[in-house]
Amino acid sequence: MKAGSLLAGLPAAAIAKEITDVLADAREVRIERIVSTGQVTPEGEWYDQDDDEWVLVVAGAARLRIEGEDCDLDLAEGDWVLLPAHCRHRVTWTQAEPPTVWLAVHF
Amino acid sequence: MKAGSLLAGLPAAAIAKEITDVLADAREVRIERIVSTGQVTPEGEWYDQDDDEWVLVVAGAARLRIEGEDCDLDLAEGDWVLLPAHCRHRVTWTQAEPPTVWLAVHF
Repeated sequence: MKAGSLLAGLPAAAIAKEITDVLADAREVRIERIVSTGQVTPEGEWYDQDDDEWVLVVAGAARLRIEGEDCDLDLAEGDWVLLPAHCRHRVTWTQAEPPTVWLAVHF
Repeated sequence: MKAGSLLAGLPAAAIAKEITDVLADAREVRIERIVSTGQVTPEGEWYDQDDDEWVLVVAGAARLRIEGEDCDLDLAEGDWVLLPAHCRHRVTWTQAEPPTVWLAVHF
């Protein structure tokens, strides 16, 4: 049995890079905590993933743009999105302080 | 794309049964929100699952007993546990009001 807290070990202030911790990694599933402190997807780039991703904002806030949509999706604490494989998307904003904590399930 | 909030549609007071919503269901993964308002595993019973389960307390608080352990595991907001298949466990307490919101990933 492994255990931990998604809210432990967070940076006290904004830092240069996102932090990704793999919490579980099995044949068909990978569960990660990602901590963002203001990072966004670089201008003009899109995530285009071979796997489905289910993503949750555990703490903080973020905005996501789905390709083809007219506006961003606002994500507050508790909000989740299921992004099918090859649903192109970008992170357009993340709350820096206190940090934004994501839970991502890739499958 | 599907989206929602883990914190929406919660009961205002304790209710008789747990509420389970399936948020994503793929060949090898099932993601569920479970809302508990005081429910526990019946005395003498254990969960004994064929799949691995990764479980997170999103809101509220709970206690979990792993078979063979001397004491309960206290779970607060943000706490997670990876329960391998056939790791027998029981829920010994859940906060009723406000409700306890779990995220469970079965894989």
